[in-house]
Amino acid sequence: MKSQITNALSDFFFEYETPRQVLVRNRRVGVVCRIIQLGVLAYIIGWVFIYEKGYQSTDTAVSSVYTKMKGVGYTSMNGTERVWDVADYVFPSQGSSSFVVMTNYIITEGQAMGKCPELPGKHNCSSDADCEGGRYRREMTGACVNSTKTCEVLAWCPVENDHNIPDPPLLISAENYTLFIKNSVTFPLFGVTRSNLVEGVDTSYIRTCLYHPKDAPLCPIFRLGDIVQQSGFSIENIAKEGGAIGIVVDWTCNFDVDVKHCKPKYNFHGLYGHPDEKDKVKASVGYNFRYAKHYIENGIQKRTLLKVFGIRFDIIVQSLARKFDIIPTLTAIGSGVGIFGVATVVCDLVLLYLLPKREFYKNMKFKHTDSHTQEPDSEACSTETGESKK
Amino acid sequence: MKSQITNALSDFFFEYETPRQVLVRNRRVGVVCRIIQLGVLAYIIGWVFIYEKGYQSTDTAVSSVYTKMKGVGYTSMNGTERVWDVADYVFPSQGSSSFVVMTNYIITEGQAMGKCPELPGKHNCSSDADCEGGRYRREMTGACVNSTKTCEVLAWCPVENDHNIPDPPLLISAENYTLFIKNSVTFPLFGVTRSNLVEGVDTSYIRTCLYHPKDAPLCPIFRLGDIVQQSGFSIENIAKEGGAIGIVVDWTCNFDVDVKHCKPKYNFHGLYGHPDEKDKVKASVGYNFRYAKHYIENGIQKRTLLKVFGIRFDIIVQSLARKFDIIPTLTAIGSGVGIFGVATVVCDLVLLYLLPKREFYKNMKFKHTDSHTQEPDSEACSTETGESKK
Amino acid sequence: MKSQITNALSDFFFEYETPRQVLVRNRRVGVVCRIIQLGVLAYIIGWVFIYEKGYQSTDTAVSSVYTKMKGVGYTSMNGTERVWDVADYVFPSQGSSSFVVMTNYIITEGQAMGKCPELPGKHNCSSDADCEGGRYRREMTGACVNSTKTCEVLAWCPVENDHNIPDPPLLISAENYTLFIKNSVTFPLFGVTRSNLVEGVDTSYIRTCLYHPKDAPLCPIFRLGDIVQQSGFSIENIAKEGGAIGIVVDWTCNFDVDVKHCKPKYNFHGLYGHPDEKDKVKASVGYNFRYAKHYIENGIQKRTLLKVFGIRFDIIVQSLARKFDIIPTLTAIGSGVGIFGVATVVCDLVLLYLLPKREFYKNMKFKHTDSHTQEPDSEACSTETGESKK
Repeated sequence: MKSQITNALSDFFFEYETPRQVLVRNRRVGVVCRIIQLGVLAYIIGWVFIYEKGYQSTDTAVSSVYTKMKGVGYTSMNGTERVWDVADYVFPSQGSSSFVVMTNYIITEGQAMGKCPELPGKHNCSSDADCEGGRYRREMTGACVNSTKTCEVLAWCPVENDHNIPDPPLLISAENYTLFIKNSVTFPLFGVTRSNLVEGVDTSYIRTCLYHPKDAPLCPIFRLGDIVQQSGFSIENIAKEGGAIGIVVDWTCNFDVDVKHCKPKYNFHGLYGHPDEKDKVKASVGYNFRYAKHYIENGIQKRTLLKVFGIRFDIIVQSLARKFDIIPTLTAIGSGVGIFGVATVVCDLVLLYLLPKREFYKNMKFKHTDSHTQEPDSEACSTETGESKK
Repeated sequence: MKSQITNALSDFFFEYETPRQVLVRNRRVGVVCRIIQLGVLAYIIGWVFIYEKGYQSTDTAVSSVYTKMKGVGYTSMNGTERVWDVADYVFPSQGSSSFVVMTNYIITEGQAMGKCPELPGKHNCSSDADCEGGRYRREMTGACVNSTKTCEVLAWCPVENDHNIPDPPLLISAENYTLFIKNSVTFPLFGVTRSNLVEGVDTSYIRTCLYHPKDAPLCPIFRLGDIVQQSGFSIENIAKEGGAIGIVVDWTCNFDVDVKHCKPKYNFHGLYGHPDEKDKVKASVGYNFRYAKHYIENGIQKRTLLKVFGIRFDIIVQSLARKFDIIPTLTAIGSGVGIFGVATVVCDLVLLYLLPKREFYKNMKFKHTDSHTQEPDSEACSTETGESKK
Repeated sequence: MKSQITNALSDFFFEYETPRQVLVRNRRVGVVCRIIQLGVLAYIIGWVFIYEKGYQSTDTAVSSVYTKMKGVGYTSMNGTERVWDVADYVFPSQGSSSFVVMTNYIITEGQAMGKCPELPGKHNCSSDADCEGGRYRREMTGACVNSTKTCEVLAWCPVENDHNIPDPPLLISAENYTLFIKNSVTFPLFGVTRSNLVEGVDTSYIRTCLYHPKDAPLCPIFRLGDIVQQSGFSIENIAKEGGAIGIVVDWTCNFDVDVKHCKPKYNFHGLYGHPDEKDKVKASVGYNFRYAKHYIENGIQKRTLLKVFGIRFDIIVQSLARKFDIIPTLTAIGSGVGIFGVATVVCDLVLLYLLPKREFYKNMKFKHTDSHTQEPDSEACSTETGESKK
């Protein structure tokens, strides 16, 4: 019993099977097949390995973004000068990755809860009967105000009049603001953490630099006007009615080379409010929201309502890191060998079904286990073998 | 030397090797193996290619979301009527992808920094000794107030009393608000950008439409009550203590067909505050936060504290685009060929180890390089060859 | 015609081809090849299947996070005591996944729009000529103020003086605040939804528990001081100038076992403001933003400006679920078979080009279709076959 196992083991280890093959000496088939095989090889090496880097595994990053605006705006309305600093024009204030910079506004000061007529053009009426409560979305009192010929509503009064958007935009000076972006990315699979303050971007550089696609592609400080322009907007248009711009921080890294070559690229593209879009879907043009500052005056709750038009910036971190990994390498090789097999099958089909001497090749390639074969005489070996068995 | 290389090259190009094979004429093995092979083929073509679309590469999108609420709420407390507009009930105001709509609140007006007794039931005391500073989280003054039998604290006074949540919810009219969602997605790999305002969703349509799962599945305007209902909540429950609802915008696109077929689907599902959850983990039911409006009255800093109960909406963009790509196609084919090889191995095992005529088939399949074989007589060819060598 | 098809079909189904192979009895080749083959097998089974779980498909989750801070801070400046509650120190207030906890601040009270001199050290001047409007970013009036020897600006006056950051930080008591995290994840591919309030984390547990990496790794309530410490900061440093901390909720789940084993892990790592970073890029140290509270006093708009230094927390949900899937399983097997093929090719190269008896093995393996072969005598079978054809 033990010797049997030993025998089987020695048989297993000292024997090696390799397929028997026919060497077909035929120019046409040979050239065609070699070209197919070389093509497959070129595809595997050239495309899968070199171009698509199939020997690497990929990972995307988790990231954290911190933004900080700088700059002061200035408006002069009805003889009243005022300046707008960061605490006034950035929403929200805490430096998140998505924020709005106010570029235009409609201000309605001193609103208090009360009853007042609607704006002309909205809820017109000639008598109280036209103003039944609940007919419209606003809370109606049911009265028709004679002087304006509009219904009376329960609302923050006076009602906001947003028919005319200031043009030119009140805070067009926003184009001179600067934006500082701090972004840190971590690739959990590869255990690498990078900041957009890469090697060479130090304190003294940051103090003076300004992003430029060619001259200063790594400077994390951006002029708003430049961002707007590079995303395909004109500052006049976007500042008036607002819009949204995506700032893509692109981390495409190859960790097979030194990690210091992993640097961010900044791209800017318009998301909403694009002039092209204007013609298509007018309802959705622009970017605005309403914002209220509350206060008490003489014991009465009041608010200042701002309809804010602004540019919304979305910092979008896009990341793809690659590093050599044995699994995708072997998977690529393995499936490449499979494709090789397909090439062989194609060549065999040519050999066995298309060539004039196909019957000859068939006999060379195949051995039959029975004697009912079509050309028994050409099956020297197999017939012999079959007979010796009998 | 040169002719040698030429010879080798011509040998390489004009010769072609193809494996020699045994054609086993055996019904049982044949049928079994053909069925296995057809099964593998059906799997590769049917499952990998047609069902799982293994010939396509996939990409997920980077996206940007902008939301806008519309509608007015109305409350009447202690004879004081007031309305709540967007600037009052949406937090934060700037239209981000995650926001809260207030549906209920506990208001504490006129809080100022000072010393006042705690609420009954909290930090009860009978003498000053029970109120040592630092024993509790709140800043204690160390005094026990006789009238309430609770400790005195340094806090915004009067202290908020949130024992009773208003029921029915004060702003249950929130169900009539509408939500407009604007979403733009970019698939960087395929270079395609889409907006949820797809073909056919234009200005005039948006002005009148309201989302309905069947009748208007592409309308980007949603009634809050509908969202709540479709996410499995009842408006009464969620409005009272708050909750969270995820609005999934699902972009599952196939870019092998025209890009205009790439349309969003909207799904709604409850995240927190679900009635089922209520039984399990009561501590975490509901959604609320505190929000303060500051003002100065007679030179004293005061604030109005709102404990806001509301529905938090998270717009979650889920995207998966597919497009034909040569790499996954060939990988699928290649690994399919490999599976074919496994099928062949299985058939061979049946042939060589399970069939009664297995020794015969073994001899047909294998040629030995030495004469120490067990059945030399049946090894006609190989023996011959071996002998001719000697 | 019909019988022909029937014949072809019966041929196809009752016949089965299997490659003919040479069994090479050679110790060296045998051992080498078997070891290579066993190595490949071990790689496929051990590495791809068991270690990398290549039989599973993967999915990442869409998630929703809700946070809630608790705790009260206390400051005493110039004899004025005040407390800071959640509505005062968390930005934004509505419990989003990214928020800032104020730990230090510079307050500038009673700012009104007006004209005032700049801070000493900034925009110094000796005469009005040094203060031409537009020379600097701030809005200059063009006057040089004698008393301070600085230019006069149009701004919120008095101008904020942020030269000295309070040290020790005013709200260092922030380390005793607690943070409650509620996180729900959905794996769309597998249709599984999980909450971080897993089995066993119920109301009574939440009421008393506090997260500890070893003793209470599932408690969703965290002490701020613990988070800061585990992320590698000291509370003194980070509280003074601010910083950012990432709280990673890691959902690495295997859905081949019971879903209740799918539990979150919490990790903490510093993002900005790290002491190491301080030396490298000083410009970007710390985390601060400006925040204004507006009010009206005697009919004049005023504001209280807060320069907030704080710890920004980013809750980052990282998820990777795995489940058995037939596609990756068969792809792994298929490409494994391909690698096996490569092993065979390597062995064949050894056999046919390196061994002393290589010509003998070549003849065993290959059959030539013509008689121009180098060793016709050893090609018994093929010659025979070739002749019998002629």
